[in-house]
Amino acid sequence: MSNPRASFVTLMPMPEHREPNYVFSEEQVAGKSAIARLFMDSRTRLNQNVDRADNFLVKRFYNLDHNTYLGGALPAKYKELMGLVASACLRCDDCINYHVIQSYRLGVSRPEQEEAINVALVVGGSIVIPHLRRAYELLTELYS
Amino acid sequence: MSNPRASFVTLMPMPEHREPNYVFSEEQVAGKSAIARLFMDSRTRLNQNVDRADNFLVKRFYNLDHNTYLGGALPAKYKELMGLVASACLRCDDCINYHVIQSYRLGVSRPEQEEAINVALVVGGSIVIPHLRRAYELLTELYS
Amino acid sequence: MSNPRASFVTLMPMPEHREPNYVFSEEQVAGKSAIARLFMDSRTRLNQNVDRADNFLVKRFYNLDHNTYLGGALPAKYKELMGLVASACLRCDDCINYHVIQSYRLGVSRPEQEEAINVALVVGGSIVIPHLRRAYELLTELYS
Amino acid sequence: MSNPRASFVTLMPMPEHREPNYVFSEEQVAGKSAIARLFMDSRTRLNQNVDRADNFLVKRFYNLDHNTYLGGALPAKYKELMGLVASACLRCDDCINYHVIQSYRLGVSRPEQEEAINVALVVGGSIVIPHLRRAYELLTELYS
Amino acid sequence: MSNPRASFVTLMPMPEHREPNYVFSEEQVAGKSAIARLFMDSRTRLNQNVDRADNFLVKRFYNLDHNTYLGGALPAKYKELMGLVASACLRCDDCINYHVIQSYRLGVSRPEQEEAINVALVVGGSIVIPHLRRAYELLTELYS
Amino acid sequence: MSNPRASFVTLMPMPEHREPNYVFSEEQVAGKSAIARLFMDSRTRLNQNVDRADNFLVKRFYNLDHNTYLGGALPAKYKELMGLVASACLRCDDCINYHVIQSYRLGVSRPEQEEAINVALVVGGSIVIPHLRRAYELLTELYS
Repeated sequence: MSNPRASFVTLMPMPEHREPNYVFSEEQVAGKSAIARLFMDSRTRLNQNVDRADNFLVKRFYNLDHNTYLGGALPAKYKELMGLVASACLRCDDCINYHVIQSYRLGVSRPEQEEAINVALVVGGSIVIPHLRRAYELLTELYS
Repeated sequence: MSNPRASFVTLMPMPEHREPNYVFSEEQVAGKSAIARLFMDSRTRLNQNVDRADNFLVKRFYNLDHNTYLGGALPAKYKELMGLVASACLRCDDCINYHVIQSYRLGVSRPEQEEAINVALVVGGSIVIPHLRRAYELLTELYS
Repeated sequence: MSNPRASFVTLMPMPEHREPNYVFSEEQVAGKSAIARLFMDSRTRLNQNVDRADNFLVKRFYNLDHNTYLGGALPAKYKELMGLVASACLRCDDCINYHVIQSYRLGVSRPEQEEAINVALVVGGSIVIPHLRRAYELLTELYS
Repeated sequence: MSNPRASFVTLMPMPEHREPNYVFSEEQVAGKSAIARLFMDSRTRLNQNVDRADNFLVKRFYNLDHNTYLGGALPAKYKELMGLVASACLRCDDCINYHVIQSYRLGVSRPEQEEAINVALVVGGSIVIPHLRRAYELLTELYS
Repeated sequence: MSNPRASFVTLMPMPEHREPNYVFSEEQVAGKSAIARLFMDSRTRLNQNVDRADNFLVKRFYNLDHNTYLGGALPAKYKELMGLVASACLRCDDCINYHVIQSYRLGVSRPEQEEAINVALVVGGSIVIPHLRRAYELLTELYS
Repeated sequence: MSNPRASFVTLMPMPEHREPNYVFSEEQVAGKSAIARLFMDSRTRLNQNVDRADNFLVKRFYNLDHNTYLGGALPAKYKELMGLVASACLRCDDCINYHVIQSYRLGVSRPEQEEAINVALVVGGSIVIPHLRRAYELLTELYS
């Protein structure tokens, strides 16, 4: 609140990009999936700690990261799926969870999620399989 | 021709997936961009050598790789862009060239290509920048 | 059973490759090592979920993956150790566990496992050490 | 003790490099931070197992690793921070914990640690963020 | 010039960070080393192309990247060496060249550069060696 | 010559490991393959430069690297193939060339080399394909 730098960063808009319209709220996601709830709770708690540290460059990076997935030339849902592909082929479970949840909230279907993960599987190889297994568990909870 | 295994692999279709309708042929791409032409020539020459080796598992992997990008639940153009994101965040120039060209052939616009590369840039970090620079050179040749 | 695609994939043999003769069953491994038992239980549970999803491309990839480690020009035991080297230098604990167990089941000795891990350590660097530490714990349980 | 090879490795000094003067002992670190204590306990336990295995090449690698961070042309504190940057951009939580703790013990300030992590964040991209979040939790415990 | 967005990004300063005082200009570097000259020429040419594309998110990322290496809690020279460590263990020759040159321009000695590369070698493993070899060739040209 | 440290490192043997008996000399390899000759010439030239720098830690790492591939519990030829798998899944062309040549010199057959590369392909994914293509060109020259 008393930190003008942080609000400055947050207020800086990206031209011609739009905040997405979510089909589901984070609360609805947490109600459907225990995996998603645990992930979001842990992420929120840890992010509060990062937030308090108030590192200027980290805040800018978070802002840039947020803007990357806003709808522009590409619809937001495909950008989230691209984030999922990147996360899966770089093998980051937290990032996979995040983009699976965001894609779900934007109305992406389960077959669409699976096809995106398949791109990561073929590009990234069998080393992606343990992450695919865990992603499928989250998909099963969300889409049941 | 005289190898029944290879044709078997090639003939095995993926259910409910379609070969894409290209807006531009490889010849048209080669006519627009020297970078693309050099890349495709080298790729063709090296693939002929791999083809002659006739390794069964390699052929299957190539077949699987081909099927991954066919239109299914997701349109082919977004799958090619996902391949581009994966290639850029794993930092493989040949793979980036391939998916930029395939996306172009499927009618993807330059702003769409740039936004896909941005996802890879933010997920993968500044280490992606040298590859982004080279990708932009190819984009400039293709979309001029 | 009622899915013709899955059985089709499973039935497709790789020419001139053989299923390995295991020295130890999965049950014997589970009896020797708590780490192995936990890993195999979790893997089985998650794979059942992947199996139910019945994604055609994932099934094909699993099939390809399985065939890769069958004895051919190279004996199966060295292929499993190569899978171990790849897993360790790409730093995937689940994959390391899998290949350590498979190698053990094929009669690989502990010094052979350690030498394979050493290749990964030197190629992949000190970033491999945390995975080496956990692998050694599994080795100690299996070979005690 | 009865193993001449191990002591030989340990005794081999690196010319013109110095063991660092720590501001804090491992015990003091364990007293300040539960995360650090758990990490160090687990690391010690697993290393004892590696030590018992007495693999010659592993011991030499450990020795080389140790020598890399001794003060020479560069002060030890900057080398530990370089280890932190490498660990964060290669995304290894155990390695991040290790170098955050070592840097702390050498008197590195929290803003210095954050700036080193920022280099890894920008070079390595958003895929570093989950590791940054966990590193900030450790930083908060150590510097409170 | 006529693009208000780009200048806006460029003008946004990072609080309490300073542009470095270079000991050597880019021209002096180009005069000493053919490798550096070729790298800087190619980089400039490719960056002009990226610049013309005027992608908002890319410009912001470049700005963030620039700010990361400004002197703050850590002196600029150690931040450049940290960029070198990150580049070497992520194995990006262009990035290694960039940070070796920047470090040289800030007055870093050759032994300091070598010790930073050693951290990357030990963390990243023998896979770093081909990049180390090329880095040493640049070091030899710069410091002769 | 006048540097006792370097010779000390070189002379330190690894217990119970043997230098391999090569079937082909480097000269014979250079006579068969232009790719191999160019690679070995460039590697020799760059290593001479590294050698002159006489960095103690680099020399020790080179020594450790050399010892890793000596025959011990595992025959040298399988260790070289493991180095090939690691190099291919970490995607380093120079390292792939090196281990393909070393394996060839130790009498490894082409089908054995291809099966090792297949492990890397399946573990590492389609991102390995450009490197596989180049490796197959070298294989074709060596085994023709």
